[in-house]
Amino acid sequence: MRPRDQVLVQSSPLGRPLVEAVTRLVGERGAWALLRIGFGADAGWANAAPEELLAELPPIERHALETCDVAVTIVAPENTHEMSAIPPERQQLLRQSAAPIMPRFLSDEVRWVGCQWPTPALAQEAGMTVQQFEDFLFGAVLLDWDAERRKMERHAAPFDAASEVRIVGADTDLTLSLEGRNAKIDAGGANMPGGEFFYSPVEDSAHGEVAFTEFPAHYQGHDVTGVRLRFEDGRVVDARASSNEDYLHSVLDTDEGARRLGELGIGCNPGIQRFMRNTLFDEKIEGTVHLALGAGFPLLGGTNVSTVHWDMVKDLRQGGRIELDGKVVQRDGRWET
Amino acid sequence: MRPRDQVLVQSSPLGRPLVEAVTRLVGERGAWALLRIGFGADAGWANAAPEELLAELPPIERHALETCDVAVTIVAPENTHEMSAIPPERQQLLRQSAAPIMPRFLSDEVRWVGCQWPTPALAQEAGMTVQQFEDFLFGAVLLDWDAERRKMERHAAPFDAASEVRIVGADTDLTLSLEGRNAKIDAGGANMPGGEFFYSPVEDSAHGEVAFTEFPAHYQGHDVTGVRLRFEDGRVVDARASSNEDYLHSVLDTDEGARRLGELGIGCNPGIQRFMRNTLFDEKIEGTVHLALGAGFPLLGGTNVSTVHWDMVKDLRQGGRIELDGKVVQRDGRWET
Repeated sequence: MRPRDQVLVQSSPLGRPLVEAVTRLVGERGAWALLRIGFGADAGWANAAPEELLAELPPIERHALETCDVAVTIVAPENTHEMSAIPPERQQLLRQSAAPIMPRFLSDEVRWVGCQWPTPALAQEAGMTVQQFEDFLFGAVLLDWDAERRKMERHAAPFDAASEVRIVGADTDLTLSLEGRNAKIDAGGANMPGGEFFYSPVEDSAHGEVAFTEFPAHYQGHDVTGVRLRFEDGRVVDARASSNEDYLHSVLDTDEGARRLGELGIGCNPGIQRFMRNTLFDEKIEGTVHLALGAGFPLLGGTNVSTVHWDMVKDLRQGGRIELDGKVVQRDGRWET
Repeated sequence: MRPRDQVLVQSSPLGRPLVEAVTRLVGERGAWALLRIGFGADAGWANAAPEELLAELPPIERHALETCDVAVTIVAPENTHEMSAIPPERQQLLRQSAAPIMPRFLSDEVRWVGCQWPTPALAQEAGMTVQQFEDFLFGAVLLDWDAERRKMERHAAPFDAASEVRIVGADTDLTLSLEGRNAKIDAGGANMPGGEFFYSPVEDSAHGEVAFTEFPAHYQGHDVTGVRLRFEDGRVVDARASSNEDYLHSVLDTDEGARRLGELGIGCNPGIQRFMRNTLFDEKIEGTVHLALGAGFPLLGGTNVSTVHWDMVKDLRQGGRIELDGKVVQRDGRWET
């Protein structure tokens, strides 16, 4: 943080202990803290306002996001399902409103960090007490990140060198190209916890089938179980689900990019062993991979554009494997080397 | 409210029920609601930041206050004494930071409304339960405001026509000039509740003594009891208090304007009969007057400039009177006509 930085601090009322610790540190560094405390989704406004307003940021908010230097997001929900009070088509308009400022946040122009704060709702979503969730959260966050970075660099090197990745598991046999693409290693910088390395795969390369049958796919307050996707030339050409299939289709129909993959990520956080119904953690479970439908990462060469970015986690720990150019590098969630 | 208005909605987490009702109505009118939810005084930041930062609004905040169309302030404190964690000189710097945007809010450029929400802290300050405070609040707010306006217009007319006001009461004999100044009648428009008419008196006219011995004078989380002020040529030349006299002096020394009167107000709200330790209500107790040290109202011809505006309430119901050019118009808090 630099003197006179303008630091947006986003959270909910429940995030207050960490918010106040952060604003004090911002003050000590000679910077301004701008609080942005929200009450969940503000569905009352979002369901009452005209649609054209949803799709456009108010100029004051746009100015703030276009000129802030730093953003600190402390996720501390009272209820993880608040977005479900807003119909999907209105949610999509709200996502669209953020498009003009997304590039600033996907580049290095804004220094940002995001984390979660242990609230009853997050604990409940994971089937834990708050105390258990807190212990879990700190177990996932307070790692020796230098050591984790070195470990992930070692595992990422053969992916960077490979052209074809094949993921095999229950009802799953999917190939992707990473040709010309390099890994981003998340060792706990902006996202906390870190613990993954990830790519934007070549946009038309996905081919085959993947079944997300171990865990539900969770997005914007919706759970979809038993998602099965079939890819041809990078596009989802068939999509089924055991529950909420209509919602899955509505997200796939959001825009053209929603049917293509923006991300392949490899979970590597040893502090995360079980499914939490919480993407920030689930995508980093050691022994899983995740595929995101929608927006790719321009910094990683990704060209897919979409207002969607839906991470779905595939567990490979029981009978799965990853092959690079035909060579198995991970089996049953354990690295071969 | 007009379509595409940008509406700042300021409150605390406790104001949520009213905040959410307001944002829904803002949406129905086709306008944007911008939440500004704060945790009291943010003393952590304010005590840690360099002094020059306190005195300057961050550009993002300044832009918001310079371009918003409407401001809704819902006062809903968790604790009415939070400001007392910030030293007075730092509070003064924070007040200074608002100076560039004050003219917009004192003119008609921004449409604004302020009110309170019944919280435990406000009830406690008044020595009430929340239910009692709620009943009191609605009793003060839900009046026939057209009838109240007519009543106040009738009482204000002779003040408008008079040149000298004399306020007499316990240890009090103060004269002021209202020459060329007209009343603003607050019948529940922007401030809720309304129930006063008020003036910016001629700046060098205050002469004599006033003793605020019935109620403590309350400002920014500080209580000062037994305030006695002596005015000469409009300036406070002697100031004493039974408690917190140092604080009183520190506020008077804030700037040159802090020693002059910015306001004389006449309380007229029949729903407010007792002292609540809450300026919004206390200044409107029927049968009281209030004098504010500091900033006058440009719209009412007031020229006194200060970052202070401290309303002190004088009870005239037991042995007080108001004279206009020598004629008694109110005695023991009851109008003569």
